[in-house]
Amino acid sequence: MELQFLGTSSGTPTKTRNVSGTALRTAGGWLLVDCGEGTQHRILHTNLSPHDLRAVFVTHLHGDHCYGLPGLLASAGLLNRTAPLAIVGPQPLERYVRGVMETTALQLPYPVRFIDVADAAGAGILDDLAVTVAALSHRIPSFSYGFTEKAVERRLDAARLAAAGVPRGPLWGALQAGNDVTLPDGRTVRPADVLQPPRRPRRIVIAGDNDSPELLAEQVQGADVLVHEATYTEAVLEKVGPGPQHSSALRVARFAHDAAIPNLLLTHFSPRYGDGGASPRGALTLADVAAEARTRYGGNLFLARDLARYALDKAGMLTELPPR
Amino acid sequence: MELQFLGTSSGTPTKTRNVSGTALRTAGGWLLVDCGEGTQHRILHTNLSPHDLRAVFVTHLHGDHCYGLPGLLASAGLLNRTAPLAIVGPQPLERYVRGVMETTALQLPYPVRFIDVADAAGAGILDDLAVTVAALSHRIPSFSYGFTEKAVERRLDAARLAAAGVPRGPLWGALQAGNDVTLPDGRTVRPADVLQPPRRPRRIVIAGDNDSPELLAEQVQGADVLVHEATYTEAVLEKVGPGPQHSSALRVARFAHDAAIPNLLLTHFSPRYGDGGASPRGALTLADVAAEARTRYGGNLFLARDLARYALDKAGMLTELPPR
Repeated sequence: MELQFLGTSSGTPTKTRNVSGTALRTAGGWLLVDCGEGTQHRILHTNLSPHDLRAVFVTHLHGDHCYGLPGLLASAGLLNRTAPLAIVGPQPLERYVRGVMETTALQLPYPVRFIDVADAAGAGILDDLAVTVAALSHRIPSFSYGFTEKAVERRLDAARLAAAGVPRGPLWGALQAGNDVTLPDGRTVRPADVLQPPRRPRRIVIAGDNDSPELLAEQVQGADVLVHEATYTEAVLEKVGPGPQHSSALRVARFAHDAAIPNLLLTHFSPRYGDGGASPRGALTLADVAAEARTRYGGNLFLARDLARYALDKAGMLTELPPR
Repeated sequence: MELQFLGTSSGTPTKTRNVSGTALRTAGGWLLVDCGEGTQHRILHTNLSPHDLRAVFVTHLHGDHCYGLPGLLASAGLLNRTAPLAIVGPQPLERYVRGVMETTALQLPYPVRFIDVADAAGAGILDDLAVTVAALSHRIPSFSYGFTEKAVERRLDAARLAAAGVPRGPLWGALQAGNDVTLPDGRTVRPADVLQPPRRPRRIVIAGDNDSPELLAEQVQGADVLVHEATYTEAVLEKVGPGPQHSSALRVARFAHDAAIPNLLLTHFSPRYGDGGASPRGALTLADVAAEARTRYGGNLFLARDLARYALDKAGMLTELPPR
């Protein structure tokens, strides 16, 4: 499982950061969580293909999270995509997209299926990932999506095979495939007798805009990764006031610490935070955001950057991948 | 008057070219003709400010010409723009924009005035530029906008002032301001007696998607510059067929030659044309588009590039400006 960020800025794009869009790659293709304006432009600089996009999950309907959707749909059409596409999100997502399509004469050569966020968990959208949804707190309805592996491969345990006396050969394959086998001496061996314990299915939670991280408490149980906005540092949040209904790095970090989430990826930074390095004297940078998060969170912390990729290995460890 | 291109690709963006958006700078601020997705991202790399944007003119409602409009409006709002903004275009432009605003909870801190393209010429949108409109031929209603200077400054003619015996001083200013003056000897001098002849008002025509350049014949009379799509070369247009209803470089060049337009700016190139240089052997590039246009047009020809700026001087000559 691999995350790639297509935008990490809040509200408006900057020269280095686009507005929100997060790609989750799995063996079967990729998913997109949010699709701010310019997401398709960022995709041009990745090896993600609009043909392999399996579903789009929209956390909420603020423009910086959904104004790139019509253009992405249109471009996939111009590229002759034919595979159906699921688009998941809160109402009035379908009315938004269909309204744009109707007023701008956009006809797509592939079917689009809209799924309300309330139905997402049970809609069987992805054959290999279970979807969970949590309601967040923002100026408009906003949601978090959890993606959990449905099936994890189980490996044969060589020591247990030897102890059970299963001869190397086709019987191994039958056991790996989940079948009981009968040995030459008449004994029956079941897969559970010779397989290693299953590893824990991996789970990634990607949250929309939210001023109350604690609303994720249930959804993040057992999660390996939380992707959450940290629009402000605490001092800025206090100056701005609660109106925008965003989180500070401090509050997210405290929550992630309390919930014992091993990997925390912060994103959706206010454009006021410079990328660091050449910032004017005294200007706030993302180093301030990181430092604030560090005061409360001792786990594996990342501040997302546009186009950066993060791989989650089977042991549940997240690492940033080098640029292609 | 200065043109700056914010996008020069047709249909979908490429790594080097965004979809359509053209800025026209004048003394009073700037206008935007079309606003494809990512226009606001391009603006970040210019010195154009959303505060100084006077009006947006949409040629037609295909997504590559208008999907950047909601994001630009939203970002101007986040930047606390307060000046009213005129948005001009064919129906259902207002329904498109208002539909997006309503479904995505977009509230703007400045008033927006929608003006139907049919009313644009008489709406008094710009105090210093007269607007003309021509209907084009495309898959959906598409239009061309002409912008003509309303008033041109007239300079005092030193030789005629001397011949008329007008003493240097306040009388010169009064004449420049358009007033008759009485000389110490009792004679009356009128401004027309001592001003240089007025220069011709400059006119720039910026056309939307169009397969029939000849529809511009009336609008381009006296125009200094025509900005027109050249989506294809002639061979590609013939291969693609007439369905997309675009122009070839050849057809636009022939029209511009016949209409004696001194400056021709081609744009809206199919992504199949590489930027030249490192293109694979045999691949089409914009050099092919330019060469084709050159076969029919001997005037001042440019193929627009993203972010390139072109200045139209008072003599009606267009030149590309060096990068800032």
